[in-house]
Formats: sequence, C-alpha cells, structure tokens
Amino acid sequence: MYRTHTCGDLRIHHIGNDTTLSGWIQRIRKLGGMTFIDLRDRYGLTQLVVDEKAPTELKTKIGELGREFVIQVNGKVLERQNKNPKMPTGDVEIDIKNIEVLNTAATPPFTIQADTDGGDELRMKYRYLDLRRDVVRNNLVLRSKMAIAIRNYLDSLDFIETETPVLMKSTPEGARDFVVPSRMNPGEFYALPQSPQVFKQLLMVAGFDKYYQIVKCFRDEDLRADRQPEFTQIDCEMSFVEQEDVLNTFEGLTRQLFKEIKNIDPGEFPRISYADAMDKYGSDKPDTRFEMLFNDITEIAKGKGFAIFDKAEYIVAINAKGATNYSRKQLDALTNYVKRPQVGAKGMVYVKYNEDGTFKSSVDKFFDHNDLKKWSEQCEAKPGDLLLILSGDKFETQEQMCELRLEIGRQLDLIDKDKFNPLWVTDFPLLEWDEETHRFYAMHHPFTSPKPEDIELLDTAPGKVRANAYDLVINGVEIGGGSVRIFDSALQAKMFRLLGFTEEQADAQFGFLMDAFKYGAPPHAGIAFGFDRLVSLFAGINSIRDVIAFPKNNTGRDVMNDAPSTISDEQLKELYLKVVQPEKKQ
Amino acid sequence: MYRTHTCGDLRIHHIGNDTTLSGWIQRIRKLGGMTFIDLRDRYGLTQLVVDEKAPTELKTKIGELGREFVIQVNGKVLERQNKNPKMPTGDVEIDIKNIEVLNTAATPPFTIQADTDGGDELRMKYRYLDLRRDVVRNNLVLRSKMAIAIRNYLDSLDFIETETPVLMKSTPEGARDFVVPSRMNPGEFYALPQSPQVFKQLLMVAGFDKYYQIVKCFRDEDLRADRQPEFTQIDCEMSFVEQEDVLNTFEGLTRQLFKEIKNIDPGEFPRISYADAMDKYGSDKPDTRFEMLFNDITEIAKGKGFAIFDKAEYIVAINAKGATNYSRKQLDALTNYVKRPQVGAKGMVYVKYNEDGTFKSSVDKFFDHNDLKKWSEQCEAKPGDLLLILSGDKFETQEQMCELRLEIGRQLDLIDKDKFNPLWVTDFPLLEWDEETHRFYAMHHPFTSPKPEDIELLDTAPGKVRANAYDLVINGVEIGGGSVRIFDSALQAKMFRLLGFTEEQADAQFGFLMDAFKYGAPPHAGIAFGFDRLVSLFAGINSIRDVIAFPKNNTGRDVMNDAPSTISDEQLKELYLKVVQPEKKQ
Repeated sequence: MYRTHTCGDLRIHHIGNDTTLSGWIQRIRKLGGMTFIDLRDRYGLTQLVVDEKAPTELKTKIGELGREFVIQVNGKVLERQNKNPKMPTGDVEIDIKNIEVLNTAATPPFTIQADTDGGDELRMKYRYLDLRRDVVRNNLVLRSKMAIAIRNYLDSLDFIETETPVLMKSTPEGARDFVVPSRMNPGEFYALPQSPQVFKQLLMVAGFDKYYQIVKCFRDEDLRADRQPEFTQIDCEMSFVEQEDVLNTFEGLTRQLFKEIKNIDPGEFPRISYADAMDKYGSDKPDTRFEMLFNDITEIAKGKGFAIFDKAEYIVAINAKGATNYSRKQLDALTNYVKRPQVGAKGMVYVKYNEDGTFKSSVDKFFDHNDLKKWSEQCEAKPGDLLLILSGDKFETQEQMCELRLEIGRQLDLIDKDKFNPLWVTDFPLLEWDEETHRFYAMHHPFTSPKPEDIELLDTAPGKVRANAYDLVINGVEIGGGSVRIFDSALQAKMFRLLGFTEEQADAQFGFLMDAFKYGAPPHAGIAFGFDRLVSLFAGINSIRDVIAFPKNNTGRDVMNDAPSTISDEQLKELYLKVVQPEKKQ
Repeated sequence: MYRTHTCGDLRIHHIGNDTTLSGWIQRIRKLGGMTFIDLRDRYGLTQLVVDEKAPTELKTKIGELGREFVIQVNGKVLERQNKNPKMPTGDVEIDIKNIEVLNTAATPPFTIQADTDGGDELRMKYRYLDLRRDVVRNNLVLRSKMAIAIRNYLDSLDFIETETPVLMKSTPEGARDFVVPSRMNPGEFYALPQSPQVFKQLLMVAGFDKYYQIVKCFRDEDLRADRQPEFTQIDCEMSFVEQEDVLNTFEGLTRQLFKEIKNIDPGEFPRISYADAMDKYGSDKPDTRFEMLFNDITEIAKGKGFAIFDKAEYIVAINAKGATNYSRKQLDALTNYVKRPQVGAKGMVYVKYNEDGTFKSSVDKFFDHNDLKKWSEQCEAKPGDLLLILSGDKFETQEQMCELRLEIGRQLDLIDKDKFNPLWVTDFPLLEWDEETHRFYAMHHPFTSPKPEDIELLDTAPGKVRANAYDLVINGVEIGGGSVRIFDSALQAKMFRLLGFTEEQADAQFGFLMDAFKYGAPPHAGIAFGFDRLVSLFAGINSIRDVIAFPKNNTGRDVMNDAPSTISDEQLKELYLKVVQPEKKQ
C-alpha cells in the first residue's frame, strides 16, 4: 500500500497516529540540524520533518532528495510547534521513520507553484508539469465538478444523454470541416462535427423528447486569440416545447450551477431583445454589471452646423458619472482608444458637466449651454458627470460605443469581478444581409424558426423578420445560444430558398434531414452552451485554454507532443492520398 | 403549451381532469361509431377516444389522420370500461374535445413496433424511425442511465473527469489510426485516438491522482461482425495504487451498476489466473455461468496405440452431464461443429457412460473398460454422462474445446440468460511471441508492468513473464482490461528493446511520454471498459450496434446520411491533398 492518507488529510486529531504518505517533494528546507520537506499531492501539502538525531542512513537518504522526487514516507503525526493556519494540514507534521524514493526527477524547467517562473511556451511544452500547479489543476477539477452537476441536473429532468457520431458527413455550409479520409471507401471522407445539430434534430424526430450531450466539436478555422480547433459543447434539444420552456430549463441549469459551484443565487435572469440590447449597449452580448446605457441624441444634436453630427445617421452619448475631472490627457487617451483600428471610430466628442453647473465640451463652437443642457438631461447627467459622444453609421457607431463604454467601465472600476450578471438576449434577426455576396445568411442556422407573427414579412421584408432565437450572456460573454426549430417542411424549403440554396443544393446537404421531417417531426427547440467558456467564466479567467487539459496553440499544434505530424507514405497510399506540397514563395 | 402531461403520465386519480397531450399516432381503430387512437411519446401510450356523438368537424379531422402523424389533443380523462392492465395508463382514456395536427407523416417504410416488419438495412437507412421503437430507444435510455451511474460512482471517489484531445499525434504501433489532415500545417496529420492511453498516463505524471473519462475512441480496422470504427470507452487511471486497488475500485463500480440498474448483487467477483482460465475453460474470457470444466487426460490417454492421441501434445475431456442419450446423429453434428473452419478441430472422440455402468466410445478399438473408467473418474463422470474429447496442439485444442463446451452448454440449455457471472482474469503473459515476424509483442500494451517476481525472467525467458494485467469478464464477454504501468524509465527502455524498438523508434513514438517520466512519475495503474459492450450486456443483446444511436455498417458507412462522401476539389486543395483513385481490377 502506497499511502494510508493523502497529503491533504491529516489534522490535529491524527496526532500520535502512524501514517504513510506518497507524493512529490515541493521543497526542502534545512533549519539547524532539522530538515523540513513539503510533500505534495493533488489533495494538499503536508510537512515532513527529519530530526538531527535521526539515524544516519535516513539522513543520508534525505540528503539525496530533490525537487519533484516522488517519495513514500512512513512516520508519526506530531503537533507542530509553529502552526500554519493557512494550510489545512498546518497543525501537524510527520516525524519520518522511513523514506522510499519511488522515482527521481530531473529539475523541472520551471517552478511548480502558483506564481511560476515559466513562460507560456515552456508551460505548454511541459504541460504535464504545468498541470501539477494547483492553480491550473483546480480549473480542471472545477470543470469536472461542473460537468457532473450539469449531467445530474439534466438527468433529473429526464434528458437522455445520447452520443452522436464523430465520424459524420461533411456539410459545406458554415465554417470549415475537419475531414477524415476513409480507407475502406477510397476517395471519400468523413467530417468531424462542428456541432451535432442535425443528429439532435433527428433524435427529436425519433421521439427522444429530451436529448443532451457534453460533446467535442471541431472547427478548422484560422485560430483567433481564444479559439481551439476542438472545443466542448453542452448540446441540448427538447420536443413539444416553446421558447419559454427552453429558457426556463436552461436558466434553471445555470442557476443550479451558480448555487452548487459558487454558492451564488443570481436571481431570475433579465431578458432583453436584440434590438434593445443594441440600442442600450451596442452589443448583443452586453456586460450588464454596470449601467452607463446608451442615449440616442441624434434628434437633438443635429442641425447646429457641426458637420460631423449633421451628416451622421446616429449620435450616441454615454454618461460617465462623476468623471468630469478627467484631464485633457485622459480624454485624449480615450479619443486615441476609440480611433484604434480595432475600434475604428473617427473621433470622440466630450461634454464636461462642471460642478458649478456650467459645461465644457470639445464642440463648444457649435453648441451652447442650452444644447448641452438638453443632451445632459437626455443622459440624466448631473454636475460632475462626463458625457462621451460618438456618431456615424448606426451599427458601426453602436459597436464603437460598446467598446468605449467597456473601457470607461474598466477605467472607473465599475466592473465587479466577483459579480455574475446573466441575461437572455432574445428576438434575434432571422437573417443577415451580406453586402459582399449579396445574399442573406442565417444569423443562427438555417433551421431556426421565424417568430410566427413575422412569418408574413418573409416575402416582403426578410431582413426585418425576427427569429425565435436566444442567447445566454453572462458578464458580456456569450455562454450559449439556441432557437426554436422549423419543423414544417414547407417553411424549411422557403428558408432554403431565401438563403439562396437551389433545391438540389438543399437536398444534397440536408436531404436526409428533410426526408426525416416527412415522417412526423414534432415541434422542437434547443440550445448549446460553450462548456469551455462557461468553465472559464466560473474560474474567473479570460482564456479557455486554461480550462483545457491539453490545449493547442494558435496554429493548431500540440507543442507537447508535436502534433500534427507527417505520416508514412504507406499510410497515405492506403488512404489513396497524395500530399501536394504548397508552392514556396519566391 | 404543447402538453400538460406526457403519454405515460395519466392514472386513475386523474379521472375528470382536463389534459393536453402531444405525440405520435401509434394506431387508429374504429369500433362501431367510436374511434380509438393510441397516442405515443417516449413515456408511453395513452388511449384517445372520439365518440360517435362528437361534432362533425372533429370527426372529419379524425378521419384525415394517419399513422405517425404528430398531433396535439385536448380533452377529459375518463375511466376506461375495458381496462388494460398491461399498460401503465390502461385505466384511463381521453375523451377528445380538440385535436390539432402538428405535423403529417408519410407512411413509414416499416411498422413502428417491437416486432417490426423492417429488415436490418431498411431500419438503418431510416434509423430515426427505428429509434422510435421502444425496444431500440430503451437501449439508449439504459445507456444514458448507466453513464450517469458510472460518473456519479467515480465522482464520489474523487475521480476527475478530464477530456483528452481528439486531435492527437499519430502512433504507428497497434491498429490503424484514422488521420485528419491539418490545413494549417500542410502535409501533416492529426490522428484520432485509439485510446487516451498516453494522455491518461501524462495526467498521472501531472498529479491528477484519479482520472476518468467516458470517451470516443477510433480504430480504422476492417470491420468484423460486431465492431464499429468509433466506440466508447470508460477510461480510468489511478496513482499510488497497486493491482488490488484497481480491481476493488472497478469491482465496486460494476457491482454498483448491477445494483442500481438491474437490482442484482452478483457478490464478490471470483479471480482466476490466465493460466487457470486456459486450463479450465480454454479461454481467457470464460463463460462461468455453467461448469463443465476441462479435464486434462493427456497422461492417462496416451500409449494405448491410438495414434491421434499418442502424437498429441494435449488431450482434453469435458463431461456433458446426463447426455449419454445423445444420438449418433447428434454426435455426428457435434463432430461436424468442431470440424468447421471457424473451430478447426480434426475430429472428436466421445465416451458414453451408460446408465448400466458400461461404456460405449468412438475409440473402443483402442481403449478398454478400465481405460475409459479412469477417464471418467478424472472427469467426475457418473452413469448417464457423456465425455467429449479433443486432442492436438495444446493451445489450439484448448481454443477448440472452448467452442465445443459453449456449444454443448447451449444444447443442454445450461446457460442462464438472466444470470450474470463476472470474474477477474489476472496474471496475463506480458509478451506474445509472433512466429511470422519472429518477435515479441506486448499482450496488453508496451507500458504494462511485469510482475515484480518475474522481472528477472525478462532476460532469460521473456515469454514466461507474467504481467500485472487484468481483464473483467462477464458471461464470456471481455468487458474491460487494464494493467499496472511501468513507471521506471529504465524498465520501460528494457521493454521497448524486448519489443524490438530501436531507441530512435521508441523515442519517435513515445519520446514525450518518456520525457515526462523523467520528471517524477508516480506508480500508477488503470483500466478501460468497453462501454458499448457493457451496455449491450446489460440490455441482454448480442450486438453493440443496437446500443449506439447512429451506428455504421460493416464497411464503415452511415447508410442513413451516406457518409463518408467525396469532398470538393477546393477543400482538397486547401488541405494540400490529391486523391489517387485505386486501380481498377482488369
């Protein structure tokens, strides 16, 4: 037996007991003739001690130990003279009688502690050592706890966890598929699922009623900052339900998670329409941890001879409360912030509402006290506040103002990191017009149902049709989204036409789903949560990479085992494939 | 709201209530002026009734309904006159007031009932209809229930569920990998995991202590009868444990499943060594639901002039109790059974121990009463019993006798289908000698630890070294297997040499694991269960295909959506690949 206790077990009531522990050496300190060793395992740290009066043999062994050696020790639990109240085992230490080195260790390339000296690249190359650090492993433990909590919640509601194929059919729509050549079917390929969308809808046709799966999905995209080629979804679908049922079920799941994992009750989730979210926050994933809503001052700011406003479609102001003391330098920095290419504004107008009731603005030439008074009234500003104003094309300006609002929120320290503000964004547009290809795209996906009251607009003003689609947003992060699905073949066919599919194309890509729908499809709706994102939100970290055990870098490489890699000519031949090396740039 | 109750909800105490149900029409019967409809959903069947006095409009609607239409009905719960005690809802019926057709349905290509008229191919093509059948869906519900029970058990023991990469490094050893071309790394490929073996060992190096995952694995093999290219494993690994700890933990898991799912306590699992299993059952996965053990009669059957026995390495008898009345025809059929190429015996000897104490055998020419008496004593045979004897090369004969034993067991109805006999098979040989390639192969995998007491045999008689490897066998089916791993770099290097790896090969394939081991690997051991197999055992069915929602056929095709399929030239170009069509046979 390697251990009677873990390194996190021992307490004051164990004093006098014999114990056997196994683990890794965190550190060794010598103090006078005494040696102290911190022994670490997943469960904690325990202090070992070797007295100067210990047998020579034992002391010799101790002298040969090093950092990260794996050892097994046997000894008696003693009360510590200097207790460490920060450690759960801080009341005790082990007086070592025997020690056995189970494995030696080379010196790790970085220190195994919370504030490691290892850089990002090194930590990824030696991920198995990085994962030894509590701060990293705890994220994975959290992930495991969240997964089981999610499963138990959905299981209690009679959801059937059903595995759908990983080797599936390639569908050209949407992002790029990863493909898998089939040796047994020469020249043919499977695709890895971008989501089990089609299969979960088939399961509804099959009468499964409630389906869920925590499932790996795959997208062969050029990886942006925080994307992974493989990611994990909580994927769900329900039959004989309306939007309201889905929102309630998954609000219930999310609240249960907050309760079980973080001991928080975020209360009922507010709901906001897409249109309102854009008008008030300039974003379909608003961070509602602080107010500072948008104020549309287009009507009252136009026609005073300020050309930039006069030709603008939209003029929007936010009220940075109590920020009238912003210096010229700070205001210039804000202007530069919104002018960065990532934000893209042309400039920024400010209005200081001075404590004495006067105004000072960057557009004093064009607007008098009464004008600025009107604006400030619209923004519910009081003396001491600062108005920040952007203008231009409506949608672009909303997006720019969203960035400015978040930046000001950070600067004024309005964003409470310990606060969780979930909300539902609903009534998304069904379709997005793409100027480049001159066609509509499905904003969610082609199976999303329009709102019944908007169906007649499909013929006259498709761009105005709202969908029964919804997103769960927490702290400005899109955690999940879903929709009520079309379950009527005729409406689905119409959608495909609107999306520019010929009948043949629709048939080639979705024919078997449409066939299935002919045999009695129930009304159904679903949702998918980004599990990696949800865990990172709960962990209080920004990157999903830190909640994935073995993530890939931004060229899709696993730097630890150097995947992907070349395969043998024999393997290629068996797959009826030939690699065509890309042309070198001259 | 689509429903107030499901089709499995209503009971006698609901009588008089208003109810709204939604579901599929299972069947429609007309009886006099009455119409009876069985409405089906996942939860059950409820009888709907329309009286002859119902409004014409309602009766017209009813007249237009057909099988598998999706309808919503509203009405009052009535007590049935003819109660159906076989149906949970059999006490009541719904007097329909309103009916709405949610979706029509084309006539399904086969009947949606337990004893369907649909053939295998048709059922797979329309799998979404096949899954509507209770018998099929129940298997998937069972699968879901087993998965959550497994997770809760392991979670309660502090196992961390950790997802390992699906896009990993290709490793040429073992079965063929499915590969995934990387667009971002031209000419390079990921591989889909045959198992997360390396990653779970890395997680032990990382100090995760206890890992599990219910995970999809992939093998690009020519598919035999009951294999799937993607299958699901319960994959586990533990640190600071010995073989005994693993067996106890997973015996606990299995017993918990039997208790929770089938309300059975199979008791403590017997353990048998590989050597004993081969000697007693001729198999490393013995079906112990019936006895009929092997009796080695080599010593007492040789040297009497029967050439076949005299030159045999091994002569083995089984005692088919009470089968002395087997006819000549039955015995001939048995002989033919063992002579089939799948079994491969050259012939079979029988000895009838007649009720009057005399013997009648197929080798009376060579053996007298005393000889046969000795054999029967060895086999603990009594008058009325039948001995069946095979001879030849030891290993082959054991395998043949195993088949004969199972066949006789079936013929004599000794195999109780409701019985579950789990057992552990332990002490597997570490290595298998392959005559063809003239080298040793790892019987389990190259990371399996030899038994400490056998380590010195590695140099002198590698074939005799036993491994700390174990299989869980239930009713003759291998449910899972695992081993204590090597955690010492020097011993691992020796294993690689024994397995014929050059240092370079070992480094190329397992270098990063060996590197990891240098930084303090703990002693660890693990196991993996075949989840599909386990579910099918619990479901009492033979094929794993029936416990998979969307299985593939034996050429790896999904006949429902016709995957795999060709991809566009553009896609191929992006992946730097060219398809080389196989040469047509002339």
